[in-house]
Amino acid sequence: MNRKPLILVTNDDGYQAKGIASLTEAVRDLGEVIVFAPDSHRSGMSSAISTSQPLRVRLHREEENLTVYTCNGTPVDCVKLALNEFVDRKPDLLVSGINHGSNAGISVIYSGTMGAAIEGCVFDVPSIGFSLCDFTPDADFSFTKEITRKLASIVIDEGLPRGICLNVNVPAGEVKGVKITTQTHGKWVNEYHRSKDGSGRDVFWMTGNFENWEKENDNSDEWALANGYAAVVPVKIDMTAYDFLPQLKEWNFNGI
Amino acid sequence: MNRKPLILVTNDDGYQAKGIASLTEAVRDLGEVIVFAPDSHRSGMSSAISTSQPLRVRLHREEENLTVYTCNGTPVDCVKLALNEFVDRKPDLLVSGINHGSNAGISVIYSGTMGAAIEGCVFDVPSIGFSLCDFTPDADFSFTKEITRKLASIVIDEGLPRGICLNVNVPAGEVKGVKITTQTHGKWVNEYHRSKDGSGRDVFWMTGNFENWEKENDNSDEWALANGYAAVVPVKIDMTAYDFLPQLKEWNFNGI
Repeated sequence: MNRKPLILVTNDDGYQAKGIASLTEAVRDLGEVIVFAPDSHRSGMSSAISTSQPLRVRLHREEENLTVYTCNGTPVDCVKLALNEFVDRKPDLLVSGINHGSNAGISVIYSGTMGAAIEGCVFDVPSIGFSLCDFTPDADFSFTKEITRKLASIVIDEGLPRGICLNVNVPAGEVKGVKITTQTHGKWVNEYHRSKDGSGRDVFWMTGNFENWEKENDNSDEWALANGYAAVVPVKIDMTAYDFLPQLKEWNFNGI
Repeated sequence: MNRKPLILVTNDDGYQAKGIASLTEAVRDLGEVIVFAPDSHRSGMSSAISTSQPLRVRLHREEENLTVYTCNGTPVDCVKLALNEFVDRKPDLLVSGINHGSNAGISVIYSGTMGAAIEGCVFDVPSIGFSLCDFTPDADFSFTKEITRKLASIVIDEGLPRGICLNVNVPAGEVKGVKITTQTHGKWVNEYHRSKDGSGRDVFWMTGNFENWEKENDNSDEWALANGYAAVVPVKIDMTAYDFLPQLKEWNFNGI
């Protein structure tokens, strides 16, 4: 049996976003493509799952080698539903995005785009999340699309080790090349804008700036992006801090 | 100045859950306690953030050394709002939970309880997520409360390394002791129950079983729980797969 590679496509900006259209075009001729995406915007959903809401799925479109489903759940719900109930074989690749906006540094933990890629990885499917550092709805994905296509095709050939997926961020504008990097250490600061609602009550809106704690580290994803390179971070789903285990074992837990 | 330790308490089951009441009691006399918790159930919210919804905060209760706020956001929203806008000094400890239900193994990535603990860690606050392997609303937290109090007090004294927090799971029933463990490798399977809504349309409800890929590993959190021990996993917020970087750098990215 010589079947085409099966490619699952999802995102967190919803099935109508320009980013997922670009991603679908980018991988379209690499195999049989199934798009399974949220029915609207689900940014910042991380690895959230719908534990008590019923999920609904709609078959949106069917063409040769392309099927598009939409779902009322989170990005991770989409991946779980697709892999549990809607695909008849294990995909050769999962791609998520292309996100409108960066998911570099600590943003990997909040990102719905990366939530979906991490979930693909949980299912042992080679998985990549793609983000463009331009959050506008009409962002120009032309260059990102090329990188996406090449990386997708490499990962279909090479695979990825169990428990590791890729977080790919691409700068807006011209791109000098690709750097393999680490997740930049840092955090968001000044995260809320306080204003009043119509009744004069306080409301808080998310905003903020990323504070980079290692600006000079040229192996970090933020450095790569600031210097015109696409950044590829390999992401582990086992979050155990192995290096700290020996020290923790020395703590005195007597009497507990 | 000799101020009491400041302790931030949150959860994902909402401020009215029995688990957070037990947690608050457990740490109450260790310092000044601020509870900042979701106004209702937010299970499975991972590190989700509200990127486009306004957040509202309500001062629910004020007593000596105890202030309780509720918020309409996710667990991570609660931690971010508390630390950005509602506390006047950096807490000495963040505790999240006590969750009604296990967050061992891969569940760490879906857990709102752990999302909050991870967020505390982003803010460089020593942070611990606590979960009891009993999801019933009236679960018996008496033993967990003791472990919680002792661990909280150790962490206030010892601190935790930057970028590392703790995921603590406690078995239901009698507990033999505490084991320092790794995050068990495995995944959830058979994750949906398909049924019909009132109009005869398919709906999918989350369900499933955890498939343990390393049942014999007596260093894993699932092993500890299955054998009557509380499991403490140190969790890293830098998800970079450092071991895979050299191999990834050998991939041929020419032409990208």
